[in-house]
Amino acid sequence: MTTYVVGHQNPDTDSICAAIAYANLKQQLGAKAEAIRAGKINAETEFILDKFEVQAPKLVTELAKGDEVILVDHNEKSQAIAGIKEAEVKEIIDHHRIGDIETGNPIYFRNEPVGSTATVVTKLYQENGVEINEQMAGLLLSAILSDTVIFRSPTCTKADKEIANRLAKQLGVDIQKYGKNMFKAGSVVNQLEPKELITNDYKEYELAGETIGVGQIEIMDVNEVNDIKEDLLVGIEELVAERGYKFLVLIVTDILAEGSLLLFPADAKEIIADAFDVDTKGTEVYLDGVLSRKKQVIPVLSDYLTT
Amino acid sequence: MTTYVVGHQNPDTDSICAAIAYANLKQQLGAKAEAIRAGKINAETEFILDKFEVQAPKLVTELAKGDEVILVDHNEKSQAIAGIKEAEVKEIIDHHRIGDIETGNPIYFRNEPVGSTATVVTKLYQENGVEINEQMAGLLLSAILSDTVIFRSPTCTKADKEIANRLAKQLGVDIQKYGKNMFKAGSVVNQLEPKELITNDYKEYELAGETIGVGQIEIMDVNEVNDIKEDLLVGIEELVAERGYKFLVLIVTDILAEGSLLLFPADAKEIIADAFDVDTKGTEVYLDGVLSRKKQVIPVLSDYLTT
Ligand SMILES: [Mn+2]
Ligand SMILES: [Mn+2]
Repeated sequence: MTTYVVGHQNPDTDSICAAIAYANLKQQLGAKAEAIRAGKINAETEFILDKFEVQAPKLVTELAKGDEVILVDHNEKSQAIAGIKEAEVKEIIDHHRIGDIETGNPIYFRNEPVGSTATVVTKLYQENGVEINEQMAGLLLSAILSDTVIFRSPTCTKADKEIANRLAKQLGVDIQKYGKNMFKAGSVVNQLEPKELITNDYKEYELAGETIGVGQIEIMDVNEVNDIKEDLLVGIEELVAERGYKFLVLIVTDILAEGSLLLFPADAKEIIADAFDVDTKGTEVYLDGVLSRKKQVIPVLSDYLTT
Repeated sequence: MTTYVVGHQNPDTDSICAAIAYANLKQQLGAKAEAIRAGKINAETEFILDKFEVQAPKLVTELAKGDEVILVDHNEKSQAIAGIKEAEVKEIIDHHRIGDIETGNPIYFRNEPVGSTATVVTKLYQENGVEINEQMAGLLLSAILSDTVIFRSPTCTKADKEIANRLAKQLGVDIQKYGKNMFKAGSVVNQLEPKELITNDYKEYELAGETIGVGQIEIMDVNEVNDIKEDLLVGIEELVAERGYKFLVLIVTDILAEGSLLLFPADAKEIIADAFDVDTKGTEVYLDGVLSRKKQVIPVLSDYLTT
């Protein structure tokens, strides 16, 4: 009987790559194991699978009664593939809080407080003395970089860094450069139309009797929007007109550089310049150190407009 | 803040020894850790602690709010030390089914389907590159032998055997000889009076209008009862007289040799000899391969007495 290896619903890169790599390890150890997925592959993961020439796992929408399954990257029923209650959980490899999976028999459960499941899977290759081939090394490295936002997440540990560096060395990959390309491939910028991007994470505020709109997108590199900046500005102008705003600001946050590019209509130039005490290039300004709409943008605009 | 390391309530040897050894590992890795125990040390564990000159962990009857704790040898609230719901579970090292402990944060949870928690703890020393001193090696070896009944339990795995053999080699200990001594020290034979031993696991049966009593004790070596055999026979005669039985059989089962010594009053000699088709030495007979009262003793007596 084949044992399925599966990540959580709405799988991220860690769930897909850890499942593939752990199934590969189990196979090399002589088990019949097959990676599957509980949902759609996202753009970032697609880029990774293309790059390392690995096929996406088979989509399985629901487990059948008696299926044997290894869970990776989750250990809560609510996050698991449909049919989990009918299946037999044989192992769990994860890096989250301990959830509500119970088993009748003793199983291998390996949960570590590290930045990615891929980190744990890499350790398991090493502990079992199994060599990691280039394809698997690529997936594991990518999953670590994805889950830790290239080591920047507060969940990132020394073990994640050491293991990622070792995998990168094996592959001859520059972590910062590759990581940026990977995040760029998965960026929301490539997946939504300009107006969708502006209103994807969006709030309206009533300030001094008028309405302003403030959208935010968080990306790995603010330059990702260079090619669509004009389209975004057209979208901003249209939304202001359609909705009768005083103005609209789109905060394009660069997670790596830890700053934000503000985009706004030309006639809001003076408000932005005065409120933030900066020079602007007409319809944009880059604010170093600004990451939070709630804590660093709205209070400034509110102060300026209401006093 | 010191992190407690604790096994389950009514601690067995694995719970005590794994707690001590894992606390020792944590200390060597730079953490503040202290083994504690949730209950009384049993006679077997006392023998082990004496032999390897290790102090028993401090008895803690209830954890206080905010205490940090590492659970070994269990992962279910119902088996855990009192106050567990108020404490913060920081790690779990175990070899049982996955139970109902949930945590708010990711923790280290290492559960393996092996014969003892000590096996997992020994692996953790190795994975962390920490040398196991003689005292800890002694405790770990003892716990593996205890939980696996010297490799005879169906839960025993290749990993348990390999690790126990390595520890025994380090210590220069003969596993079979030491294991037998250890089980002998913990044997019920040393802890109960003769009549308590006879009636400790005891059943009465009505056969052909008369009552017989059948007790059973399970020990590692049938020779453990040599010194008290006369006292047991006196106890048997007294119970037969007091309770008006036709006779009473005490089944002394040798788990290692997989056979049972039957002890009975002299006047039941012919019944036993005929029923089991054996020669007897007056008040005893050894039956090779007989382990089960229910399946191998009662049916034979019933057949003989009722037909
Ligand atoms: Mn993950
Ligand atoms: Mn145990």
